[in-house]
Amino acid sequence: MKDEIVFLIDQNKLPFEFSILRSKNYKETCLAIKNMTVRGAGAIGVTAAFALTQAILEKRKNLLEFVIKAKNEIEATRPTAQNLFFATNRVFNAFIKNNIPEDAIIESNKIAKEDEDFCKKISYFGNKLIKKNYRILTHCNAGWLAFVDYGSALSPIYLANKENKNIFVYVDETRPRSQGARLTAWELENENVKHKIIPDNAASYLMANKKVDMIIVGADRIAKNGDVANKIGTLGKAISAKYYNIPFYVAAPSSTIDMNIENGNQIKIEERSQDEVLYQKGLNKDGKIEKILVCSPNSSAINPAFDITKAELITGIITEKGIFKTEDIKNFFDYKA
Amino acid sequence: MKDEIVFLIDQNKLPFEFSILRSKNYKETCLAIKNMTVRGAGAIGVTAAFALTQAILEKRKNLLEFVIKAKNEIEATRPTAQNLFFATNRVFNAFIKNNIPEDAIIESNKIAKEDEDFCKKISYFGNKLIKKNYRILTHCNAGWLAFVDYGSALSPIYLANKENKNIFVYVDETRPRSQGARLTAWELENENVKHKIIPDNAASYLMANKKVDMIIVGADRIAKNGDVANKIGTLGKAISAKYYNIPFYVAAPSSTIDMNIENGNQIKIEERSQDEVLYQKGLNKDGKIEKILVCSPNSSAINPAFDITKAELITGIITEKGIFKTEDIKNFFDYKA
Repeated sequence: MKDEIVFLIDQNKLPFEFSILRSKNYKETCLAIKNMTVRGAGAIGVTAAFALTQAILEKRKNLLEFVIKAKNEIEATRPTAQNLFFATNRVFNAFIKNNIPEDAIIESNKIAKEDEDFCKKISYFGNKLIKKNYRILTHCNAGWLAFVDYGSALSPIYLANKENKNIFVYVDETRPRSQGARLTAWELENENVKHKIIPDNAASYLMANKKVDMIIVGADRIAKNGDVANKIGTLGKAISAKYYNIPFYVAAPSSTIDMNIENGNQIKIEERSQDEVLYQKGLNKDGKIEKILVCSPNSSAINPAFDITKAELITGIITEKGIFKTEDIKNFFDYKA
Repeated sequence: MKDEIVFLIDQNKLPFEFSILRSKNYKETCLAIKNMTVRGAGAIGVTAAFALTQAILEKRKNLLEFVIKAKNEIEATRPTAQNLFFATNRVFNAFIKNNIPEDAIIESNKIAKEDEDFCKKISYFGNKLIKKNYRILTHCNAGWLAFVDYGSALSPIYLANKENKNIFVYVDETRPRSQGARLTAWELENENVKHKIIPDNAASYLMANKKVDMIIVGADRIAKNGDVANKIGTLGKAISAKYYNIPFYVAAPSSTIDMNIENGNQIKIEERSQDEVLYQKGLNKDGKIEKILVCSPNSSAINPAFDITKAELITGIITEKGIFKTEDIKNFFDYKA
């Protein structure tokens, strides 16, 4: 954020175009979160922090009322994302403590810095799990695009690759929005990590054929009992991993852990527009981004954005404090490394 | 087939355009099978029968040599599809028995008639499994487009719907070629069956939320032990169904059962072009079919067309003779109804 303008990479246009969106006020920043110009756990959190800061910096009468309304609006954009609530609460509390609007800026910058630090620590702990020649499967995008830097699920992969472990990554396409095929594949290419895109449908086949050594995914919200909300399709991969005895890890900073929620059943799952299923965007032969109908024209679709993976399916949660067994995550905030 | 011309619905253009391809010789018919102008277990079988008949009807010197070469070419088009081999062997044997080319026509028509009869019987047996208000999930397309008529997995659904059982169908999109979203959804709409398209990734989520009462899929090849080769993604759904105790049925006529193969490990899995993953076809805003790049431009993809679902994951196999437990399929051809 600079002079109350929030600058965002337009992830909807990646990897076909790289452009920066300038968001002038909290309303525009809300829309950018909602329409997924910005997406990914950490990135949503930090963007939400700056969105609320934009609202706080507006010179309004009845500022507090206005800010509470803005906070509710921001939190409604992506209801499953814990990082969003974590960030808005921190910024709000920092502001109301002494009623100094500029404290919101300080707190937002602190959240951004922490996000970066935590992801770097996740890379360190996660990398310890990765052996030489490992073939790792990941779902959706939990890389540096999804955070301030490094990423969660992908940061250990980047470190392992830098240490020349000769790793290979299977990138789940991640329909309907294809964050794997578009964003993760693009990140991995930028980081020189060997990889192939796979249809989501091929993941179990590869596991059955002993082609997958481990799975690492990110998280959008983690309940007190270790249940994890993550991009739709995570659950199916976790069930298959359990069936084939393949380690299934979730990587996430503490800002994704929600101690107010006992288990995954209490996590609200965002339903998104059916058009994300019915239509696909991509590059046409003239190199322009075009939207086409890919389904039978008179049928409709269901589009839940996330699913809940039960703790029993998860081998461990990679955090900035180390790797937690799911049954221990309830003690996360008391844990001293 | 009429006057040595084979007429085929161009399934690559459905549901956006309905057009009939006229295939003048076996080479063209081979290409139509390979590029999936015609696809689906029964339809591949019958088309292969007519392809070989076209070769047999060519007035060639050294006809037998020519026909054997043609048979090998036809069988190479879709190596996983048992119905293809079943059909070419029957037509070939009918021809060589008395060396009368016209016998190939008679045999091909017989295969087509049987395909229709068997699918009708599958509808009868499968329908018995479907209770009122059932919500059924299916993968890929095993409807009338995939056979001469009725279909395998969808034929019980059509009958249950005609009996006003108030059923609802979840249609797996079935990436990468989206036969679910395009063909199954289109068939169901034509048959007035209530349905929604779902991303393949959403299937486990729906099962976890008790929204799926049963799963019915088709098959491309069934081994002697009851292992089933079917469209990529079938395996993942079967593993999730097992995890959530949801009945998982395979519907297929006897022409799909391969007694020469002991188990699924011996079934050859067809690998198809990565372009099927990297690009998507659909209708652009001008109503024209257009192809767009949907993945990161410099990444490549893996595209196995089928996977193997182990017998232990399958509740039963719905055939023209009744419903078989997978452990009994080895006695299928001795079984008298």
